Order: sequence, then structure tokens, then C-alpha cells
Amino acid sequence: MIPESAIGTTARFAKTVSEADVYAFAGVTGDFSVNHVNEQFMATTRYGQRIAHGALLIGFMSTASVRMIDELGIAAVSLGYDGIRFLAPVFFGDTVTVEFVLTAVERDGQRGTSAITVVNQSGDLVAVGRHLLHCLDETEGIRS
Amino acid sequence: MIPESAIGTTARFAKTVSEADVYAFAGVTGDFSVNHVNEQFMATTRYGQRIAHGALLIGFMSTASVRMIDELGIAAVSLGYDGIRFLAPVFFGDTVTVEFVLTAVERDGQRGTSAITVVNQSGDLVAVGRHLLHCLDETEGIRS
Repeated sequence: MIPESAIGTTARFAKTVSEADVYAFAGVTGDFSVNHVNEQFMATTRYGQRIAHGALLIGFMSTASVRMIDELGIAAVSLGYDGIRFLAPVFFGDTVTVEFVLTAVERDGQRGTSAITVVNQSGDLVAVGRHLLHCLDETEGIRS
Repeated sequence: MIPESAIGTTARFAKTVSEADVYAFAGVTGDFSVNHVNEQFMATTRYGQRIAHGALLIGFMSTASVRMIDELGIAAVSLGYDGIRFLAPVFFGDTVTVEFVLTAVERDGQRGTSAITVVNQSGDLVAVGRHLLHCLDETEGIRS
């Protein structure tokens, strides 16, 4: 159960995005788009260099969601994401900070919505979205 | 430019989700939730075992989006995701198939929306969503 009074709770996760991150992410997911792994090609584009996967940013959002769950002191799973938008490229070496702010509690405290922002080291907004978490209470048998 | 006639184009990506995938994903993203990396804890829950990150499934969606871009023969970047919902757990050893179907073309062919489904080896729907791709044409200077 998430109390209404928890609205406004904030959780953050920051990481400097390394080449190792992007290459490991490509290897695990299979996304070897030229955007992410071909410096020679990207040098010919307006980006000028390789960029991180948007889905990698969602991975960092997932980490922030776990911190939110810890802040709230609940057992929960991720129900999903809405309105994810990648607004600016993230380059290798950029430091991104994901911020989650709990904005709504619904279904008698079983569901929480967080507004997500991701900024880089210059304060540029690189991604936004909303995350839904589903609180697992005893009636759902999170513990058997 | 994506022609209206491309609506219905389909792209797929399938992978057996391994412990290595989930552990590498945890290491890269920082999401070490008990849900994903603590078998002892998860044995006490209704899941009975560790489950894959939902965000890992989004990584697989990203790979399918690249295949869609290749199918369409365009240069494009991912603009974002809407309505992502994780509907059922994905366990280690499950084989998931992501399917993208192009459902809409907007903004004079610059934007494409794909409906996403993810099923496991039993045909159970484990995730759904929509993906937006943004076509980079010459006026935007994808190549400088």
C-alpha cells in the first residue's frame, strides 16, 4: 500500500555512460544499430559520434524505480511506462541523472505513478516519461 | 520518408533469456532488485524464482525497432515508447519473441508508429506497447 501522503517522494540515479555500458547493452539486447556501435558512420552524421541507446536510459529508469520502491518501503513490480520520449542524444562520457517523483496514487494505494526526467551534465533534458509501479500486497501473495 | 504503403510491415526479434543476460543487464543499469538477482528471496514469492527486468524486454524491443528501420530502408532514430505494459513474468530460460507491426505513418512520412507484442514460448503475451520512430531525412542533415 502506498499512502496518498507519499506523493512527492523523489528518487534519483546518476551514471556516467561509458562505451562499456553501450557495448554491453548492444551485446545483451542485440541492438547493434550504427547509431550506437559505428563511430566511422556516425562521424558523417549530424551527431558526429556514437550515441547511447534510448533503451539503456530506460534501464537506468528501472534502477531509479527500485530506489523509489525502497523509499516507499513497499514490495512492488514494474507495471510499465508511458510517454517515454528521447529528446536529445546521450554521448559516451555524458553523465545522466534520472529523477523519479511520485505524482499519483491510485487503486487504493496499489498503483503509483512517477514522473521521470533524465538530464545530462549540462542540465539538458535528454528524456522524459512516466513509470507505473504495482504494489504487491499480502492479498496478492507476493510471499507464498 | 516512410510511405503510407509501408503500413503493415512487420519485424521480429526472438531470444532465449539467459541468466547471463539478466546479470549483465543488472550490472550495466544498476538495477539489482531482488526480483532479478535473489533466487533465495524469490523462492518465497508467488513467482518462485528470479524474473527478467521489464526494461530488458524494452532492450529487445529496441533491437526489433532496428530491424523495422532496416525493413523500411530508412535512416531513423527512436523517438520513444507509449503504453508499455509488463503483463506476465519472464523467467530465465524463457524464449521471448518481440513483434513490431507498423500501424501508422504521420507527419508526411517522418514518423512511424509500431504496435509491439512480446510473447513467450507458450504464446503467452508478456508485454505490449507502441514504439515511435523518427525518420531522419536530408533536410534534417542526418549526414552533414
